Amino acid sequence: MHDELIIGIDLGGTNIKGALVDSGGHIISKQKAATLANTGPRAVAERISRIIGDLESQAAAAGKKVAGIGVGIPGQADQTRGTVFFAPNLHWRDVPLVEYLRSRTILPVYLENDANAAALGEQWLGAGRGSVNMVMITIGTGIGGGLILNGSLYSGTNGSAGEVGHMVIDPDGPLCSCGQRGCLETLTSATAMVRMAKEAIDQGKKTILAREENLEARDIVMAAQAEDKVALLIIDVAARYLGMGLGNVINLFNPDTIVIGGGVSKAGDILFEPLRREAVKRSLEAPARVVKIVPAELGNDAGCIGAAKLVLLTAD
Amino acid sequence: MHDELIIGIDLGGTNIKGALVDSGGHIISKQKAATLANTGPRAVAERISRIIGDLESQAAAAGKKVAGIGVGIPGQADQTRGTVFFAPNLHWRDVPLVEYLRSRTILPVYLENDANAAALGEQWLGAGRGSVNMVMITIGTGIGGGLILNGSLYSGTNGSAGEVGHMVIDPDGPLCSCGQRGCLETLTSATAMVRMAKEAIDQGKKTILAREENLEARDIVMAAQAEDKVALLIIDVAARYLGMGLGNVINLFNPDTIVIGGGVSKAGDILFEPLRREAVKRSLEAPARVVKIVPAELGNDAGCIGAAKLVLLTAD
Repeated sequence: MHDELIIGIDLGGTNIKGALVDSGGHIISKQKAATLANTGPRAVAERISRIIGDLESQAAAAGKKVAGIGVGIPGQADQTRGTVFFAPNLHWRDVPLVEYLRSRTILPVYLENDANAAALGEQWLGAGRGSVNMVMITIGTGIGGGLILNGSLYSGTNGSAGEVGHMVIDPDGPLCSCGQRGCLETLTSATAMVRMAKEAIDQGKKTILAREENLEARDIVMAAQAEDKVALLIIDVAARYLGMGLGNVINLFNPDTIVIGGGVSKAGDILFEPLRREAVKRSLEAPARVVKIVPAELGNDAGCIGAAKLVLLTAD
Repeated sequence: MHDELIIGIDLGGTNIKGALVDSGGHIISKQKAATLANTGPRAVAERISRIIGDLESQAAAAGKKVAGIGVGIPGQADQTRGTVFFAPNLHWRDVPLVEYLRSRTILPVYLENDANAAALGEQWLGAGRGSVNMVMITIGTGIGGGLILNGSLYSGTNGSAGEVGHMVIDPDGPLCSCGQRGCLETLTSATAMVRMAKEAIDQGKKTILAREENLEARDIVMAAQAEDKVALLIIDVAARYLGMGLGNVINLFNPDTIVIGGGVSKAGDILFEPLRREAVKRSLEAPARVVKIVPAELGNDAGCIGAAKLVLLTAD
């Protein structure tokens, strides 16, 4: 395995990312294509196959073999059947993805939830290096979670463990897509932060955010770093809700490390200082003493690197 | 190991229970003594030693060896140092329990949190037989939790994982001993149910509970089974709060089984029917589909049996 290469694929709602990596996780080459989920599962699989084909050719040109392909998917994977059980963002149910890819490659293919893949990546080479009990929380449109427990990926009974975004934080909070009220992701996701910004703008609050046409969470992060008061308040509110969620996570999992990923995690101390304070306040003394709360380090590469790690883990 | 016996000790705030069990977990003999925590750790250790001595003698009389001693403690254990790090009910901090026991026995001694020991017991021989991912929740004065994940006990980074009692369910709820508001154990523990009953009695509500002098949770369970309306309402409210907590547990751990222990778990369908309904309503479709929510089966023996199992696990 040591002189073989691996292909890691990160299938997202918007883009398909692929990386050719070596057995140490170093990226040798990257590829990207639009997902275009509305074209249907077979067409999406065809675009994934093209990326795999390109990366296989590059490995061959370098005189190297490819050991296998790991694929992170935005939903639940059934590893034994090689199917995507449910991926709401893609509108997929029971899609035989491995069979579709099989028509174009003979390499072994391993599927995993994308948040789990990102957690594997961060534990392997990112902010969770050396961690034995790690919770990764990715803040994006929604909030995803991945768990490394006793040193191994923990995905639960049918691959759906780690849904930190659907912890109920405020039973009287905003309605969530899952049908409950006040889930963590209704209070502190990128979507929630943009909603808070729009409310402030509608209320006539003075903020540089009012200039943005298509407001995104990263605009709020940048405005906060430029000391815009509305943006600072939004980051602070999000940090406090997230801290309440982390309190539960700390009391339940007693992790050594919590890794926060997603664009918002680049906010630095503006986010992490109130977040750490609130998380400690919201958790018991013993588990609070041992936990580090840190930003992710691998950014958009975490998914591909973690997907590649899957191949190493399974082949070990 | 197969023809050796094991001693399991369950050290509680009120009683010390000991059992001599065979390698299949069958109880051969039981012993019990008052804990009398106010006499201090050395005196408590002496009472544990006396139980161990009695059980060792019984094993010897039967011509059998004892392989080791497992001890469940009401707090956090430091297994490598053989100390009780913190046990609030006993007012113990950094007590070298194994050293104290060592003066009276040469057998190996293994410490574990009591909720974890009970979870091991129920997974071995009780309601969690065959479970790979099990969460045990014990409802008593407080609410304890034990986790079996990927088939093994998961105790976290410093032994304090599984604190389900301190999940925040209602941020505006009653003040908890941990300093937060609306923790699960303030809403649905035996203590919380007795508090609700006393409030109803003070408000002049008609209930057979008004006759009880020292009201306990089991009186409420019995009154509910006799169709007392106040008692039925209390069980229903407790079931609904517990169901909210189970929703979070299901979304985070994706367990195949949740085992509910403690006296309240004997309430039967009066508790479990609303509990299951609420838990499913409060969790995502995929993890809700695979989880069973069942009452514990080993009752007061779970702690001793699970503590004995510790010896088998460590010696394996």
